[in-house]
This record gives sequence, structure tokens and C-alpha cells, in this order.
Amino acid sequence: MTTAVIADLGRRAQSMLDALAALSDEDGRITRLYLSPAHRRAADLVARWMGAAGMAVSEDALGTVRGHLPPAVPGPLANRRYLVGSHIDTVVDAGRYDGTLGVVAAILAVEEIRARGLKLPFGLDVLAFGDEEGVRFPTTLASSSAVAGVFKQADLDGARDSAGVSLREALVGFGGDPDRVAAAAYAPESVLGYLEVHIEQGPVLEIEGRPLGVVTSIAGQSRYMVTVTGEAGHAGTVPMTMRRDALAASAEMMLAVEAVARAGRADQMVATVGRLSLDPGAVNVIPARVSFTVDLRAETDPPRAAAADAIKQRFREIAEARNVAFLMDRYHDTPTTPASPRIQAAFARAVEDLGLPVRRLTSGAGHDGHAMHALCDIGMLFVRCRAGISHNPNEFADATDMGLAVEALIRALTALADGQGEV
Amino acid sequence: MTTAVIADLGRRAQSMLDALAALSDEDGRITRLYLSPAHRRAADLVARWMGAAGMAVSEDALGTVRGHLPPAVPGPLANRRYLVGSHIDTVVDAGRYDGTLGVVAAILAVEEIRARGLKLPFGLDVLAFGDEEGVRFPTTLASSSAVAGVFKQADLDGARDSAGVSLREALVGFGGDPDRVAAAAYAPESVLGYLEVHIEQGPVLEIEGRPLGVVTSIAGQSRYMVTVTGEAGHAGTVPMTMRRDALAASAEMMLAVEAVARAGRADQMVATVGRLSLDPGAVNVIPARVSFTVDLRAETDPPRAAAADAIKQRFREIAEARNVAFLMDRYHDTPTTPASPRIQAAFARAVEDLGLPVRRLTSGAGHDGHAMHALCDIGMLFVRCRAGISHNPNEFADATDMGLAVEALIRALTALADGQGEV
Repeated sequence: MTTAVIADLGRRAQSMLDALAALSDEDGRITRLYLSPAHRRAADLVARWMGAAGMAVSEDALGTVRGHLPPAVPGPLANRRYLVGSHIDTVVDAGRYDGTLGVVAAILAVEEIRARGLKLPFGLDVLAFGDEEGVRFPTTLASSSAVAGVFKQADLDGARDSAGVSLREALVGFGGDPDRVAAAAYAPESVLGYLEVHIEQGPVLEIEGRPLGVVTSIAGQSRYMVTVTGEAGHAGTVPMTMRRDALAASAEMMLAVEAVARAGRADQMVATVGRLSLDPGAVNVIPARVSFTVDLRAETDPPRAAAADAIKQRFREIAEARNVAFLMDRYHDTPTTPASPRIQAAFARAVEDLGLPVRRLTSGAGHDGHAMHALCDIGMLFVRCRAGISHNPNEFADATDMGLAVEALIRALTALADGQGEV
Repeated sequence: MTTAVIADLGRRAQSMLDALAALSDEDGRITRLYLSPAHRRAADLVARWMGAAGMAVSEDALGTVRGHLPPAVPGPLANRRYLVGSHIDTVVDAGRYDGTLGVVAAILAVEEIRARGLKLPFGLDVLAFGDEEGVRFPTTLASSSAVAGVFKQADLDGARDSAGVSLREALVGFGGDPDRVAAAAYAPESVLGYLEVHIEQGPVLEIEGRPLGVVTSIAGQSRYMVTVTGEAGHAGTVPMTMRRDALAASAEMMLAVEAVARAGRADQMVATVGRLSLDPGAVNVIPARVSFTVDLRAETDPPRAAAADAIKQRFREIAEARNVAFLMDRYHDTPTTPASPRIQAAFARAVEDLGLPVRRLTSGAGHDGHAMHALCDIGMLFVRCRAGISHNPNEFADATDMGLAVEALIRALTALADGQGEV
């Protein structure tokens, strides 16, 4: 593999990303919400690319564009397929890499597989999902959930955007047929796995100087609302020893959250206090009540559960020592989605083939793979991005890194075909 | 001194406080803002009480009601006087003790001094100030500042309430003559000192089981706005070791503030973080920027200044270790107002006379004494109140404690007359 091939793949990826970036619901910035006019145009462009790459193109009831490449050789896998893709919807004022890179990389991989005459013994379906960001409707991953056969029918009429448009109405406007949702689901026995290329959306690969990373899991998440109740008092008249300061207690609790997460480094644990409000909130009044959120993630579920227990135990000790009360309410919890060892191994083999070090890391952010895991094995390849920035016009991935990702995707599929991805 | 006398004084104080509490600008709760109709009625009632107690009554340009009791015996102090009082304005939805107790206690003391035939060699002026809470106008302590000769003339037209009424207009409406502000000031050589009885507005006396406390100073205050700037990031994708979390840094800083204040216990130091805001404030985003206030007070100025330095030094260390930036902006600073050792000794002697332990403590809250200190020596006697609650309908002081306070005030004045207050 020459550097020139990688560079060429990178340039082609960049060109396709630029073309998609031009399709926006807003002038001057990239905003492509699910089932919007810009999404329609992006779906049509992706369909044209798929067709040009030699794929049979269709679009399912939820707006997912699908390009099918049949197996090139007969055999026991000939009636099964790998799914490869990502999403083409964006957040408001988005970058041009999040999601779209995975779709573009899949299309380029199919082009190359055909151009190089690689004979895969299984079919390939390239999927361009439409509802990964969950910005327009209260639901999220609707399109990949339908593909995986776990879409909730009630969302068709129950989920409405801020203008009051139901998901069903938006689908009809987009050209979909909401009555054919069930047909969007793959039969599990027909699917070998789901592969996705995506920018990291974090700083790890860049700081370590690695273009690609093999995802070990999509981290499970627990979110808590913590409420600490002490006692208000005059900032001038209550001695330090007589205070029940809800904010000082919360400060100690926040450091405990941080310490527990730091201790979970081997489990790629992260914990974040992102929101905090306090009452009464006057410069000269001791805070009586503080509420803050805790967002806790880890590579696997057991250490996350153990960390939550450790945090709660520390909260108890702090609350007791400071004579304050606390509530720790878990209001959101999603389990870890493990990446299949088999697909991880195929990606690792491909990365090694390219002469690159294999960096395995968990995905702290959510992805379509979370829904797809209900259908089949999943795996992801992360691409280095600048400063970990995402969901922002400053989002950036280097063209060469993207070329490496396309090449790694091709080689991972080849490895899976060779059975070399088995572990 | 019999318990019956104390109980009687307490009952009379309670009755007068109840009468004042009935004078409110709002139905159903006590709100008596400076120069309001309720303040007018309260000033008139206080004036009647003063007259009934045998005092010559007047009202100055700023609305301060003054009752004068001439010296009972000739001598070198006969053309000088002690001032005794407090304020009759309140916060919105106030209690019935803050301020008013000091005015009521002074009037009762004069009644008793005459009734008991105590011959004081100096004059006594009872003062009922009107602008201690600073709720209506942006200025505060306007009335005691005028008495002390430090009122800022510019506030007459510059200070306006929320309805746009200037202080000058409100004074005219109240019956005052804004052109006679200068005449409100006492000649310093005519004044021997200022004494004030006030509820503690803190929990110390109650927790220690002491009815009365001798104030050593009105604590100086420094207020800071601290801004901590780190870097936003995705709560799921940025490892703990790569974070520049402005809230985690602030948590450590807040605990440092608390630790420095706790270490300053001997200086009656208190520090409070009462307000905090953060940006962007989303559950899944690492906070980029946090702003919080620090309110720092101590019995004297040097330890407060040293504590501010220590806090800033700890902030520097924390910011450096966490790779965040911070600004610590001092936006408010008032020096400590020391209580005169002579007046402290007189109060202490009186408290001892009553068979009570002498508890000395600083006043963390501000008082008219701060302005009066520009004119003369000041001293304050604190009365135990329930749970430290003030500025609230739940504010409560026991009638017996109030009776003890009136008796202690009488005895402190006697002690000063005897020269027994000298140190």
C-alpha cells in the first residue's frame, strides 16, 4: 500500500464530505436535522454515490439509505452480509465529519473493493442513518433501531418536533412509508455484523499521536441528580463550626466524584459534574440547597456500578460529617454496548497492516452501534480529530487520517472474509 | 435585682415590639421601608413613647427620631451625652426584633433611669434611625451617617428607589428638610459614645446558652468575584487526566476558602461562597467557566487581609495544578469597626452584675455603629435569638432575654457614669 493511495482516498473522502457539508437547513452553517429538506438532499446525494459505486440502492421507511453490494463468490456466507455505515443527520451548527465520515468511508470502501477486484464471500450493505443526533425529535437512534428491529412503534405518533410535527408526518413528507417500519428490520440470521468508522470526538488519539483507534465498547452511562440540603444562614454571623453549608458539602462531593473516576482509569472511567444550581444564591447567605448532576461512564458495566456505589458511600460520609442531607437520584442509565472481539480483531489486524500502533479505547459518546447491537455484533474504528472538538464548526479530521480509515475498513472486511478476524 | 423586674422589662419590650410590628407597608407581614408610610407611623409612635418617658423629642432631616434626656447632675460631663439607639426600618417580610429592639430597649432604659431616680452626669439621646437595611434606596446607613456627619450630599438626588423617587423627594414627603442635613450631625466633642442593643442574628449565644453577648467589633468585609476558566469538553470522551474542568477546580478552591476560614477561628473568621454560576452548564459537557463569590469577614482587619492572601495563594496552586486560569476580583471592602474597650468594659460589667457569663463576640453583620464610629466610640450588646434566624418572620428573641438586655443597658450607662467602664 503506497502513501499515494491513502492520500487519494483521503482527498476523495474530503471532497465528498465537503459536498455533504453544502447541504444545510441554514445558510452559513451546517444544520441537517432528521427528515429535513437538507437531509432529503443529503440522502439523495448519498444514494447517487452508492449507485455510482455499483450498489443497488433503496431507502427504508425511516429514511435510511441503503446500498447493497452482493457477494462476489459463492459459499456458506453468500446469503449473509456485513452492514457498514453511520449517520448523515447533524446537530445544529455542526462540523462536517461527525457521522458523515462513516458513510463516505463505507461508500469509498465499496468502490475500492470493486475497483481492486477483491472477492468478498458475503454481501455488504452501506447504511446512511438519519436520526443519530436526536436533535429534532425527542427520540434518538430511530433509524438504526428500525434497522435493528427494535424501533418503538409508539414513537411514530408520540414523538413530535418543536413545531408539533409527528415523526409519522415527517416521514411521509420525506417520502417514507411509516406503515412499512417492520420491513426495515434485517433478519438477524442474515447479518454478520455492523462496522462503523467515526471521528473520535475526544482528544486521546491526537494527544498520543495515533491516527486510528479500535473501539472496545460504547460506554454505558449513568446520570444522577444529586440534591444536598443544609441550612441557610447569614454569611457574617454563623461561625464556620456551626454551618451546614450545602455548597461546601457539594464541593467535597464533587471532588469525591472526580477521585473515584480517576481511580477507575483502567476502566476508562469518566465522571462529570456538568450542571449545578444553588439556593438561595446570595453573596451573603450560606447556601441551603444545592443540586448537581453526575454523568458517569466506563468501558464496561460492573466498574461503573461499583463506582456509583463508591460515590454514594463517599457522599454518605461527607453528608454525615457535615450534618447535611442528600438525595442521589439515577434518572438515566444505559448499559455498555461491547464491541465484538471478532470485529475488534479485524480492525486491529487492519491497523497493524498499515504499520500503525493499535490503540484500543472505549467510546464515551453514543453511536448507532448501540441500537445495532440489538441485531448483531458491532465494531467501530475511530479516526483522530483535532483537539477532541465535535458538534462544532471547528470539528476537523486530517484527510490522510481519513484515507487510512477507509483503507483500514477495506482491510478489516478482507480480514473478516479470511476469517482472520476470528479470535 | 429581682427576676420580677427583668420579667417586667421583657414584657414591656415585647409589648412595644408588637405595637411596632403592627405598622407595616404590607398586609399580613412586616415590611417597613425607609421613609414609607409605615416608617412615618413608627417614627410617630416612637416619638410618643419618648415623650411619655420624659424626653424632649425631635426629628432630624434624615428622619431619625431623637429623644433627649438632660443630665441629672452638674459636672464636667453635663454638656456631653451618650447616644443610644438602633433602627426602625426593616427588610421586606421582616421579623419584629432586628433594630426595633435596640430602640425599644433605649426608651425603656430611660424610663427606668428616671423611675429609679438614677442620676447620670451626662445627657442621653435615644436615636431611632430609619435607613439601616438599605432596602429601598441604593444607599445604606444614610440616617446614622447624617448623625455622624459623614452623609454624602450627592445621595440626596443621586439615590433613587425602584419607583424613581429620589431620597430628597422621599424625605420631603416624610416631613424632613433635606436642606438641614448638616444640622443633623452631632459635634464630636459633645458625644461620649454610641451604645446599641441588637439581636445577635447568629446562633452563637443560643448554642452556648448565653442570653447576652458583648460585641468586640463589627467585622470588616471583603467580597470577591472569582472566575475560573478551563476548557469545555464532551463528558464521555475526554479522559480524566486530560481535563481542565473549571468546576472541579472551583470545588477544590471552595474547600480551600473553607479551610482558611476554619484556621482563622481565633479571629472569628468566616468565609462564604454564596453564589456560583457555570458555563455551559449541560449534564454531558465539562464546565469551561465558573464564577463564584467569596464573602470574607473577621474580627479585625489584619487576619482578614492575611486570609485573602492565603486564599489567593491556594487558588494559584490549584489553578496551576489543574491547568486552569482564574481571576479574583475584590469588588467590595469595608474595614472593621472596633467596639471601644471602654464601652465593652461597661457592658461586660453590667452583664457580670446580672450574674451572667461575659461572652465576647464580633458582629458579622453590619450595623449603624459602623457609621457612628466616624463620630464617636461605639459599643454593642447582643441578645440571644432563636436559631440565628433574622430577616425573616421566624425571627425570635425571648422576653426575659430582652429584659436582661434593658437592665444591662441601664447598668452599662451607670457604669460609664461611675467611670467603672474605663479600662
